[in-house]
Amino acid sequence: MFVATSADGYLAGPDGEIDWLEPVNAMADAESYGFHAFYATVDALVMGRRTYEAALSFPKWPYPDKRVYVMTNRPVAPRHGERMVFGAPDAVLASLEAKHVYLDGGVVIRQFLAANLVDDLTISIAPVVLGGGVRLFEGGERKHALELVGTQTWPSGLVQLRWRLPGVRT
Amino acid sequence: MFVATSADGYLAGPDGEIDWLEPVNAMADAESYGFHAFYATVDALVMGRRTYEAALSFPKWPYPDKRVYVMTNRPVAPRHGERMVFGAPDAVLASLEAKHVYLDGGVVIRQFLAANLVDDLTISIAPVVLGGGVRLFEGGERKHALELVGTQTWPSGLVQLRWRLPGVRT
Repeated sequence: MFVATSADGYLAGPDGEIDWLEPVNAMADAESYGFHAFYATVDALVMGRRTYEAALSFPKWPYPDKRVYVMTNRPVAPRHGERMVFGAPDAVLASLEAKHVYLDGGVVIRQFLAANLVDDLTISIAPVVLGGGVRLFEGGERKHALELVGTQTWPSGLVQLRWRLPGVRT
Repeated sequence: MFVATSADGYLAGPDGEIDWLEPVNAMADAESYGFHAFYATVDALVMGRRTYEAALSFPKWPYPDKRVYVMTNRPVAPRHGERMVFGAPDAVLASLEAKHVYLDGGVVIRQFLAANLVDDLTISIAPVVLGGGVRLFEGGERKHALELVGTQTWPSGLVQLRWRLPGVRT
């Protein structure tokens, strides 16, 4: 999992906005805060319906080189070869035949966290307090210890924390 | 402000418990993750009623060398020279004649954050997901940019993030 949050733990503002990330994105290095290196290790993406629709609205489909699975109970016709999936996170994951899955979108991330199926957690914290929005951690996750793998900071004020979840399937 | 939270942003568990901090506290250095240095710069503490009662329950009063103000609308007789205060955060702060105030307790911290009276924010993140409890950021805080001052990590897996709030009274 590779996400950006505000200092108060939001993935997006109250209306889904991520414009508060613009200042740090404008100062991103060529590696986009390690995203390119992370993305290169991934063989499939699983995202929720809202994240999918946001990606569709981009000028260019952002994932031409990856298998994309959209978790939704309202399947639509794929436009870029993406597949619609539906069900419990463990069943979905088992059906993917993927080694390293990139989870995207708050709902999907929370479902997989609750099912204890997330094995690494990279959270990039932007230097801003939002005061409201879509939380990464809504509550109800399983209580578990993390293992700190490392941290990194950038001149933009972004701080990246990397954790592993011990005892989770690898 | 100098607080410890879980990776999912809780100051305490659902029943106020902070036992999840024991593993990192057991591995603390002599400086207690920088707390002693921070505490030395403080000339007064402002805490809420619950934090005060927790402090009273300790075997020894933890703040013998500092002025302590308890924000409460149910004042009780002081037992260690502490003073009971009540009112809006800005009025309380103005009455203290203190330069560097240490805010303690979720309610007090949130009130002062909402009133834009917090000028530095040190959050030590413990390597654990709790899944529920008393949040540091409950929502409703003013949206504002932070300035990252620094980060530090310890072998226990604790990560400390230090921010300043630009434009706040100093």
